[in-house]
Amino acid sequence: MNIRGIVQDSDTVAGRLFDRCVMILIAASLVSMSLSTVPTLPPLWRTILTVAEAVIVVLFTVEYVLRIWTAEDRWRYVRSPYGLVDLLALLPFYLTLMWAGMIDLRAIRALRLLRVFRVFKVAQYNTAMARLGNAVKYARDEALVFLFATLVLLYIAAMGIHHFEYEAQPEKFESAFSSLWWAVVTLTTVGYGDAYPITVGGRIFTFLVLICGMGIVAVPAGLIASGLSRALEDERATRGITRETAGS
Amino acid sequence: MNIRGIVQDSDTVAGRLFDRCVMILIAASLVSMSLSTVPTLPPLWRTILTVAEAVIVVLFTVEYVLRIWTAEDRWRYVRSPYGLVDLLALLPFYLTLMWAGMIDLRAIRALRLLRVFRVFKVAQYNTAMARLGNAVKYARDEALVFLFATLVLLYIAAMGIHHFEYEAQPEKFESAFSSLWWAVVTLTTVGYGDAYPITVGGRIFTFLVLICGMGIVAVPAGLIASGLSRALEDERATRGITRETAGS
Amino acid sequence: MNIRGIVQDSDTVAGRLFDRCVMILIAASLVSMSLSTVPTLPPLWRTILTVAEAVIVVLFTVEYVLRIWTAEDRWRYVRSPYGLVDLLALLPFYLTLMWAGMIDLRAIRALRLLRVFRVFKVAQYNTAMARLGNAVKYARDEALVFLFATLVLLYIAAMGIHHFEYEAQPEKFESAFSSLWWAVVTLTTVGYGDAYPITVGGRIFTFLVLICGMGIVAVPAGLIASGLSRALEDERATRGITRETAGS
Amino acid sequence: MNIRGIVQDSDTVAGRLFDRCVMILIAASLVSMSLSTVPTLPPLWRTILTVAEAVIVVLFTVEYVLRIWTAEDRWRYVRSPYGLVDLLALLPFYLTLMWAGMIDLRAIRALRLLRVFRVFKVAQYNTAMARLGNAVKYARDEALVFLFATLVLLYIAAMGIHHFEYEAQPEKFESAFSSLWWAVVTLTTVGYGDAYPITVGGRIFTFLVLICGMGIVAVPAGLIASGLSRALEDERATRGITRETAGS
Repeated sequence: MNIRGIVQDSDTVAGRLFDRCVMILIAASLVSMSLSTVPTLPPLWRTILTVAEAVIVVLFTVEYVLRIWTAEDRWRYVRSPYGLVDLLALLPFYLTLMWAGMIDLRAIRALRLLRVFRVFKVAQYNTAMARLGNAVKYARDEALVFLFATLVLLYIAAMGIHHFEYEAQPEKFESAFSSLWWAVVTLTTVGYGDAYPITVGGRIFTFLVLICGMGIVAVPAGLIASGLSRALEDERATRGITRETAGS
Repeated sequence: MNIRGIVQDSDTVAGRLFDRCVMILIAASLVSMSLSTVPTLPPLWRTILTVAEAVIVVLFTVEYVLRIWTAEDRWRYVRSPYGLVDLLALLPFYLTLMWAGMIDLRAIRALRLLRVFRVFKVAQYNTAMARLGNAVKYARDEALVFLFATLVLLYIAAMGIHHFEYEAQPEKFESAFSSLWWAVVTLTTVGYGDAYPITVGGRIFTFLVLICGMGIVAVPAGLIASGLSRALEDERATRGITRETAGS
Repeated sequence: MNIRGIVQDSDTVAGRLFDRCVMILIAASLVSMSLSTVPTLPPLWRTILTVAEAVIVVLFTVEYVLRIWTAEDRWRYVRSPYGLVDLLALLPFYLTLMWAGMIDLRAIRALRLLRVFRVFKVAQYNTAMARLGNAVKYARDEALVFLFATLVLLYIAAMGIHHFEYEAQPEKFESAFSSLWWAVVTLTTVGYGDAYPITVGGRIFTFLVLICGMGIVAVPAGLIASGLSRALEDERATRGITRETAGS
Repeated sequence: MNIRGIVQDSDTVAGRLFDRCVMILIAASLVSMSLSTVPTLPPLWRTILTVAEAVIVVLFTVEYVLRIWTAEDRWRYVRSPYGLVDLLALLPFYLTLMWAGMIDLRAIRALRLLRVFRVFKVAQYNTAMARLGNAVKYARDEALVFLFATLVLLYIAAMGIHHFEYEAQPEKFESAFSSLWWAVVTLTTVGYGDAYPITVGGRIFTFLVLICGMGIVAVPAGLIASGLSRALEDERATRGITRETAGS
């Protein structure tokens, strides 16, 4: 059927146009969401944004219905991550219509943000995207170990700095939890400067933690470099096999 | 003809001298531009700078005319990126002469800065430059995906922190746009400390965003490492083929 | 014997359950330790925490006794790093019972934190963990050279900035030791902003130190990338040999 | 001769002991230098430090004389980088003795710091050191291109931010030179927070500069990863050739 081709395929001209329209709609949705956060917006603009939002959600609803209707296995689409995201992006608007004033609109509206991930679906036919995806896949297990080591180091850093700095700055390193904020800001090398050690012990401890931290922070770069090299080698190997098969 | 050899070639002694003179002229132009920003400059110095600037622009004009005159395909040079840069670097000075006081001189004069890229043209005969260039070329597609993922993460970070911090610090996280500044400063780990979350929700959100951000920040290093390895392999393969051809 | 299988093995269902219980106990111990740092904790919670701590330590003691009892070579386990950590995690509690009020409980209780490293023992059967471990092992010597170069650069940075900034900001760059704190915060790019150069000489010196520092900070990422590649190659070589042996 | 063996060789027991003594002397010299920066040092300590310094310099002089005396080509040693460093480390002390009070002792005494590089000479027999050295050598040309690109980006960042922020914050972005300090602190992601853009234009410009900057900052890590891989391959190739030669 014709509509199925437009909605489901990305190879035909009409299909690509449909995908592009959805992308533009998502971008418009993101822009309208960020504009609506401006507190000094004149009332006229606010009205325009409300209308635009309604139009966008109606179009998203049409898209959602079309996707269900044209899907080969409808139930499978509804349960798939993209199907759930498409539904979650619509729900807040309709829930607000029904129970206006009863739920915090803002927080729930953020669900629409999830739709941005659809961009990655369109992009996944891209070679670079696939290569990066493979690199990440190869590095996944190591990334988990890295994440765990980071969490352990954060815990040790928070407990340690609390021990050293609590007496000198009780309001900034009040408990292990407020010290954890310092640990996150320091180990990621962001360093806002809202909390920093002032005792000699705390500073030496920070130095030791940072030496460990710099080793740990370097892991993701190494993982991605190594993962990309593997992904490239695999691509070549596949191409080599294809050529050999074609040659013989 | 002799002048053509001096202007266009970089292999002869005279050609190399010409290139070096142009480089020195560009450096002088950069130095004079940065000196002219000092507000406490004595009037004598200011006069010297004005004269120096006029001399530099006249010499740039001579160079531009010589390049057009000696070019094999004159129109092609004028339209080429380097030709356009050479022209754009001259225009502000002559425009100012004609419509002095009518345009903001400062902003437009910055175009002369573009000439610094000519340095890369001279340098491109360099092996290291070529290798880095190849590494960047190989990593270009992945870099675009990375850039896109960064923008999405910045958007999510800005919307999220606005949600968490707006009530506690309305002057710093006024809208999604002022929150975006926080997101840029935090995810690049610059962390000036002009804005940072103070609520528990905002801090946990910052932690999650930074964990993602550190993975993303690591991508360029991985891309360049992997791109350089590929560029080196290609160099070796080419050399290997050359040797084989020479040997057989 | 049955209990030996439960305590020592990680392959059986019971063994895995035992390992998981120990992990949960360690996690509970970490949570209770961090909760006990909150100064505004209501008295009831504090009582619950004290009881929970006693229960955890008793369970750790039971585990320690079981591990000694079921070990093939008991003395070897007691002297092994894990055995020492298991003992050190128990001691503070019993010491406090005996000499309560005579020692600073807080500092000594931190020894329990060491138990978190047992997690790495369970995790070490993991391929990713082993690969990361190999990558670190390959890079160990280079990491020591890197550490030494970092220390030298920190020393030079501290002495230099003290020389440039002492007269302008004697309270912040009082001696080489307080300048060292600046050097650590700057070279790791944390940059709290509690101390920074304000003289022209100090700023130019900082620029030069940072150029060197960025080269040095990049070393760990390079080491891990290169170490991971080696670890992967070795894995393949081993698998290749296994296959060849199996094939022939 | 016996003394020659002690001073020049690092393979004999006596030679290694001599090297170790020199290392300890250098370390003592570094410690005494950093201690002498403490302004609150009691007079007794200050006297001890002065004596210790005299002893250290005398021992360095003895070492220098021994090195000249035992060198195969004396003039070559005196002109070599290590010979010059050894001399420069001694000169300040003797110059101070002769023209005390006439020169700033502090600045010139810093020359002794150069001796720390002798540590690298002893360490260079180390495989890891050699490998890192090779990695750096391979990456040298690319590092120069990287350094040049960094300088260009710093210049553009400084000129740009001066243009955007001068009117809003004339005291912080007074000229291109004070803006350069901002550019250094921002592009290295140190971010002290002593100067940051507050205008919308300046913030957008900062965002663009940081996107470029993160690509540039990633280059050293990539260079070292790729350089280390090459150094390792070369090592293997050399070993392979050695084995083949030995085998055939």
